[in-house]
Amino acid sequence: MDVGAKEERDQAWWGQRAWSLLSAVRARAPLVQCITNLVSMDIAANVLLASGASPAMVHSLREVPDFTPRCAAVYINVGTLSEDWLPSMRAAACAGRPWVLDPVAAAASGFRMEACLELLSLCPAVVRGNASEILALASRSAAASSSNFKGVDSSHGSVDAIEAAKALALSSSTVVVVSGAVDFITDGKQVVSVSNGVPMMQKITATGCAVTALIAAFVSMEPSDAIVAAACALSIFGLAGEIGMESAKGPASLRMHLIDALYYLDEEMVTSRVRISLRP
Amino acid sequence: MDVGAKEERDQAWWGQRAWSLLSAVRARAPLVQCITNLVSMDIAANVLLASGASPAMVHSLREVPDFTPRCAAVYINVGTLSEDWLPSMRAAACAGRPWVLDPVAAAASGFRMEACLELLSLCPAVVRGNASEILALASRSAAASSSNFKGVDSSHGSVDAIEAAKALALSSSTVVVVSGAVDFITDGKQVVSVSNGVPMMQKITATGCAVTALIAAFVSMEPSDAIVAAACALSIFGLAGEIGMESAKGPASLRMHLIDALYYLDEEMVTSRVRISLRP
Amino acid sequence: MDVGAKEERDQAWWGQRAWSLLSAVRARAPLVQCITNLVSMDIAANVLLASGASPAMVHSLREVPDFTPRCAAVYINVGTLSEDWLPSMRAAACAGRPWVLDPVAAAASGFRMEACLELLSLCPAVVRGNASEILALASRSAAASSSNFKGVDSSHGSVDAIEAAKALALSSSTVVVVSGAVDFITDGKQVVSVSNGVPMMQKITATGCAVTALIAAFVSMEPSDAIVAAACALSIFGLAGEIGMESAKGPASLRMHLIDALYYLDEEMVTSRVRISLRP
Repeated sequence: MDVGAKEERDQAWWGQRAWSLLSAVRARAPLVQCITNLVSMDIAANVLLASGASPAMVHSLREVPDFTPRCAAVYINVGTLSEDWLPSMRAAACAGRPWVLDPVAAAASGFRMEACLELLSLCPAVVRGNASEILALASRSAAASSSNFKGVDSSHGSVDAIEAAKALALSSSTVVVVSGAVDFITDGKQVVSVSNGVPMMQKITATGCAVTALIAAFVSMEPSDAIVAAACALSIFGLAGEIGMESAKGPASLRMHLIDALYYLDEEMVTSRVRISLRP
Repeated sequence: MDVGAKEERDQAWWGQRAWSLLSAVRARAPLVQCITNLVSMDIAANVLLASGASPAMVHSLREVPDFTPRCAAVYINVGTLSEDWLPSMRAAACAGRPWVLDPVAAAASGFRMEACLELLSLCPAVVRGNASEILALASRSAAASSSNFKGVDSSHGSVDAIEAAKALALSSSTVVVVSGAVDFITDGKQVVSVSNGVPMMQKITATGCAVTALIAAFVSMEPSDAIVAAACALSIFGLAGEIGMESAKGPASLRMHLIDALYYLDEEMVTSRVRISLRP
Repeated sequence: MDVGAKEERDQAWWGQRAWSLLSAVRARAPLVQCITNLVSMDIAANVLLASGASPAMVHSLREVPDFTPRCAAVYINVGTLSEDWLPSMRAAACAGRPWVLDPVAAAASGFRMEACLELLSLCPAVVRGNASEILALASRSAAASSSNFKGVDSSHGSVDAIEAAKALALSSSTVVVVSGAVDFITDGKQVVSVSNGVPMMQKITATGCAVTALIAAFVSMEPSDAIVAAACALSIFGLAGEIGMESAKGPASLRMHLIDALYYLDEEMVTSRVRISLRP
């Protein structure tokens, strides 16, 4: 079999996995507790609903003991972090449900970095950030644990981010996603790449937050294979962006068309247009 | 007069009532204080503005004494409840203005249920929830007051919800709305049903919150007849959804078209398409 | 040169200034820290992104010392003020970056008015409000400082607001913007007017908040000439509204088209359609 044929076969496998996970989310409507930043609440909830999941923005520490155990997954995002929300984040992370961390702007302050490192120690299934966020976390995490990761180049190129992501994944026993023009997903050994999406998605606030919420929904359907779940969620969301872009005239109409597209994605679109591959 | 003609006459009466209330909101722009969840703020404010009302998201306890008495109505929603917002909710509920409660996910936690029951004791003009929320509240409220309501069947069918809503309305001396494919509004004796709306509205986050905000605006125009005000608000919002659905391609475009439609609804649309009736 | 020709020459000058500032924002992507109300977060972030700026909604006091000094500008808005956010507002205002104040509903409560007056004493580069807000602030500020401003007429006409704005600008050494059908910008001596925009923008929640965020981005590109920066931001935003209105069918579609238009504004549109003039 030549390389082209093998690639096509792999695409077919990923396309089927992505469709199968999206179908599971639509059929089972997993309840996803979101403790997320104030900017992202609307788009994260609407993206979860359009995917078929059931969002629940619940952030009071008083509610975590009763509510979190009933959720299929938890999504924690530090975008508008404040001291009074941190105890709820800790408690929800420790409630025994698979959970996903979005360390937005991890390096924005010492307070935020400490919070991210503490949350990272509470066993997230997946951590998703952009290159700068993952590089910052990996660097600090490595310094804290005296592992053999040698710090971060000041240039935030994708190769550096992949190595940082692998080191972070290994040291934290989690799956790490580096979002970008191409997304990379790694458990420290394997690296999977996702090439769906369009650049204009960067011009809509909280699309990163929204896709991390979607990762949480997908992880709840496949908790034992978080790499596959994360890759499929990223690909599905990027694909919705591509389809949305066909009708968009700017970032605000892209936002609308993306969510509409996510809602009506069908098997043919998903299986033919998902772009996921295992990096050699 | 045969039944068909009577029904038509009733529709005409309701259509006139709905148009008259919407016109009053547009003409008088009632100031509605909203202490609502963080997810719903954007859509609730935009729905109120599109209806002609004037929204004010004010939640600090420090502002209630000065501000709340100047409002035409108050809207309280526990969707993202936290301990620090509860005192403001109590104070605003007690400020002497007609107010409306949205007990989002009342059964999510013991903390939330207690908060809802306490707010329920502060004489809301209207309580609006889905069947599960009303059933949960009615069950707990009945248990607390030892009334003759015998608890809630585990099936959340609409008939059970109507009986629960009637019991809750009587025990709390309020008007209770059960939202669903058909909405029911009751004061414990009469039951009014509203059949406007489209299923896809469930796929937009916080549409329930937004329509409760609209109910508050309508109640401020007709405080002495909260059943009529609530029914007309639900019908107008559902009708905007129906008109929006004619142009929508998914939940995000439905949201946009719904708000646009609410803004330009005219007398002919309202009087001919409102679907409200008194249940026999 | 006759008056018509002079006016045309001035329009050309303003058009070039507006285009030059928008181009600078697009090229340099200034980081704007926003401590803003909960309703406005989504639209303010999306408007900043569409303009080319980089929004950061960061409100924890713990993050101000590390984060604020790295920002190009700070935007503070009291729309959903609460006691726990006020210390962050104070600290961010004092962090040495140019900052802009939106005194939303300044007269809503004594608590809010005191907070606005205190923030006003912390040297904002620009204060933007509607006529009622500026009149209320000017009146109270004048009372506090025993200046020669004689209080506010009960009618909130534009002439009264201009005089109040001039007095406020002088007493607070800031630039004051009065938004309305025509916006006025003054440092207490000069008055510049901006005539872009469409009335329906009032029916979208938080457009005022969003344009103040845009003013902060523009001020960061031209901190030594806040009148020009504010006038150009107001004109650009109003122009995006005018272009958006060409496709809009109501307030929700206007919101979308406005943001799309802001994203793709080009030199020809800006230089030919900006409506700014120095009042004689």
